Amino acid sequence: MPKFMDVHRGMKGITPELLREAHEADLAIQGEESVDFQRAWGDPETGVVFCLSEAPNAEAVRKIHERTGHPADEIVELPLEV
Amino acid sequence: MPKFMDVHRGMKGITPELLREAHEADLAIQGEESVDFQRAWGDPETGVVFCLSEAPNAEAVRKIHERTGHPADEIVELPLEV
Repeated sequence: MPKFMDVHRGMKGITPELLREAHEADLAIQGEESVDFQRAWGDPETGVVFCLSEAPNAEAVRKIHERTGHPADEIVELPLEV
Repeated sequence: MPKFMDVHRGMKGITPELLREAHEADLAIQGEESVDFQRAWGDPETGVVFCLSEAPNAEAVRKIHERTGHPADEIVELPLEV
């Protein structure tokens, strides 16, 4: 299953609780698109959040994030990893 | 130790070998700035590479990547993780 990194911007001031809630909202419905969100990292100061996932394609990642109300600004497939 | 995600752009066509070489060049000198590069992911099609690290500060990450010839376009501290 391909991996993806998606990037969200404009989340300045995000708290640990808000990041957890957003991530859990994704986890709750990710199975409907066969996505597996593995990790999310965030920075309240710059408002940038990164999510690492496995998914059939970028469109599946896009759909889940849109349905949970935090659309990704960028979704990058990751064929290479070291 | 804080975590960081750095982003490189413009690496279209990057191969598994080139990503590994770049990562190993970072690993070879990272101790001089107390950086620990943990993982790197890349996409030959968009030319985007993400590196996850632990480091004392963003400046340390910036220095290592600059010295190995692949400066980061963006370095984001990651105080939040789920």
